Amino acid sequence: MLITLFPYKSLLVRCATKPCHVESVPSYHSKIKIINNTRDSFSTIIPATQALLTLSPLQMAETQVRIGILGCADIARKVSRAISLAPNATVAAIGSRSLEKAKAFASANNLPPDAKIYGSYEAVLDDPNVDAVYVPLPTSLHARWAVLAAQKKKHVLLEKPVALNVAEFDIIIEACDSNGVQFMDGTMWMHHPRTAKMREFLSDKQRFGQLKLINSWFTLGVDPEFLKKDIRVKPDLDAQGALGDVGWYAIRAILWAADYELPKKVIALRGPVFNEAGVIMSCGGTLYWEDGQIANFYCCFLSHLTMDLTAIGTKGTLRLHDFVAPFEEHEASFYAGTELGFNELVTAWAPQPSEHTVTTHLPQEVLMVREFASLVEAIKVKGSRPEKKWPSISRKTQLVMDAVKASIERGFEPVELGN
Amino acid sequence: MLITLFPYKSLLVRCATKPCHVESVPSYHSKIKIINNTRDSFSTIIPATQALLTLSPLQMAETQVRIGILGCADIARKVSRAISLAPNATVAAIGSRSLEKAKAFASANNLPPDAKIYGSYEAVLDDPNVDAVYVPLPTSLHARWAVLAAQKKKHVLLEKPVALNVAEFDIIIEACDSNGVQFMDGTMWMHHPRTAKMREFLSDKQRFGQLKLINSWFTLGVDPEFLKKDIRVKPDLDAQGALGDVGWYAIRAILWAADYELPKKVIALRGPVFNEAGVIMSCGGTLYWEDGQIANFYCCFLSHLTMDLTAIGTKGTLRLHDFVAPFEEHEASFYAGTELGFNELVTAWAPQPSEHTVTTHLPQEVLMVREFASLVEAIKVKGSRPEKKWPSISRKTQLVMDAVKASIERGFEPVELGN
Repeated sequence: MLITLFPYKSLLVRCATKPCHVESVPSYHSKIKIINNTRDSFSTIIPATQALLTLSPLQMAETQVRIGILGCADIARKVSRAISLAPNATVAAIGSRSLEKAKAFASANNLPPDAKIYGSYEAVLDDPNVDAVYVPLPTSLHARWAVLAAQKKKHVLLEKPVALNVAEFDIIIEACDSNGVQFMDGTMWMHHPRTAKMREFLSDKQRFGQLKLINSWFTLGVDPEFLKKDIRVKPDLDAQGALGDVGWYAIRAILWAADYELPKKVIALRGPVFNEAGVIMSCGGTLYWEDGQIANFYCCFLSHLTMDLTAIGTKGTLRLHDFVAPFEEHEASFYAGTELGFNELVTAWAPQPSEHTVTTHLPQEVLMVREFASLVEAIKVKGSRPEKKWPSISRKTQLVMDAVKASIERGFEPVELGN
Repeated sequence: MLITLFPYKSLLVRCATKPCHVESVPSYHSKIKIINNTRDSFSTIIPATQALLTLSPLQMAETQVRIGILGCADIARKVSRAISLAPNATVAAIGSRSLEKAKAFASANNLPPDAKIYGSYEAVLDDPNVDAVYVPLPTSLHARWAVLAAQKKKHVLLEKPVALNVAEFDIIIEACDSNGVQFMDGTMWMHHPRTAKMREFLSDKQRFGQLKLINSWFTLGVDPEFLKKDIRVKPDLDAQGALGDVGWYAIRAILWAADYELPKKVIALRGPVFNEAGVIMSCGGTLYWEDGQIANFYCCFLSHLTMDLTAIGTKGTLRLHDFVAPFEEHEASFYAGTELGFNELVTAWAPQPSEHTVTTHLPQEVLMVREFASLVEAIKVKGSRPEKKWPSISRKTQLVMDAVKASIERGFEPVELGN
């Protein structure tokens, strides 16, 4: 039995492969309350200091979806931890082109002792004890490995950006469809409970009204090392550069706010910055919808870290400044204002916008894995059909990214969006 | 002797024509501390209930600049109060085309009993006891009345937008220059101490670095009555509509953040909305500087009240959501982040942006009047030259507004900015 105490604000105790919430732990010497994450009926109190020794394995009701990881990318550290923390998933395998690297990753990231360690990606796909794969490979390798995974009947959790272009993404989706496997991209913030709370606000005609304007900026000030060596500056790896990396999030946020209605046309901002290899380091654009709705986005590797989303309706305004990765792991805020105005002489606002804080025991990336695993489980156990919502959202994001690139290539002309 | 208690958080006691701070007044029955606003050495304690009776007039060191108001516009209510509260200014006259309206305004807005009330604008300009005029007339009347005021040697505090276009504004400025009078526009937030604090941050190469991106949005959701009747929807009154009203502020904020360096070119966003009379109800644009700096602005009368300014540098980010009119009259905040980043697994930010709050005893519009009056006083008393900074900033704002309009008229083509 493996029990590990994770030093979070809201701790997680891992019993065998099942994590449980430990709430309100002032210190390791306190009594702790263990709540079985997936079976709300179960709870018990034990002294925190004894947790490692005395906690007996909890009943486990649901299937553990067994996930194999392709490659040892940096982001795989966060996601392997997320898989470990998810109540319905486990890391079953890790594969790298170098067995040594895979071993080192497994050890450094506390993968379960029974996780298989392979010296190739193929071996992960061939492992009958792997249900699904998480693919954090460079984008140029996505089509090859996601398609192969689907052909081997492995469900696919694919890092963003999903592909180099929509045509390539369609090949991935066709492979997933024809093999009956679930597809989901790795956009974690979609799964934060804050996102659902903000959707409630945007959908509320009384509080928000009709959507008119969206602004989304994700800028990152990277170091000189990154600008030289990161895969996101290499035309043969992540050829979409800043657009594919941070731009993906900004565009996704806009589509999310627009409830996934595609804009009619896209016009890139002038002055995009390319590196010597021709990869985008900075760009932006304006998206126009048929009904007059407008959105701006901007993304770059050359400015200070900023992560803004603002949506303005006829009756309300939504904003937040950490939409991709919340300031804090276990709580996140947004600001909402409804029918704001001024006092009589316009010397103060009445009412003013209010802050809404949403707490979450499980970090957003764990909720992403949990959602993915529950879809996989439904397919495996109940024979459900794959959920089409996720690939559809990924595809729309890629479509807009393609249109931005096309507009840049055509001298900042408007590009109409097809399907 | 006139003493009035104003019901503010931080009260002001007016002794004769001089206002003094009254700090920390829990109720009218408490002792109050009177601090002479302009002579920090003076202070006394009296019971608040006796203030009206017992307070003796304070020593007054400086000249009271005597301001005449042209017209009874809504905004004149706020500014006449500001003139009354300013330590170095007084309302000397109000003129309207209707004597009755002027009388009603004087009474409703507690103008000093010795303020002259006139049935014409000309009479204000002809009053030898008027040093300066505040002109809140519709923009189409600015050139005529501001020029006439300057010719009559009256200093000019002119509501924004300053003119219908730069050519017209240049006539105003020429008149002010040749008559040696001070010009200032009515952009109040320029004078808030928060603005100076934010400038410190933007100017700090260590904390903010090099400016890269600016976003400024000011949108207003007006009621149907406004859309039918307000002067800002009428082509013969405020012909620049939303661009001249809220757009003025958004563009000014961008220029302020750029330390008044003019952009090289401006491209209007597509899809501006006009009313039936051809007045802009909604528009936006992108400003491009030679060195790659980019700014977006948006302004409209058709979306919920939003007032955002964000500036991103290479090392820091500045943002605020109430830049034109602070949420509270006596304190205002902005958010600044320097070299923000993430923790090791990107599950939280470290460090995070911080909120900076700036308090002010005098509201920003009072500080505007005080600044204007002190420039006037310097000219009157010390023979100083008019301060050129203010008309120069007004002119640049108008130049960008003109370029936005030109870009719209030319089918959203880039418009190069002249001087």
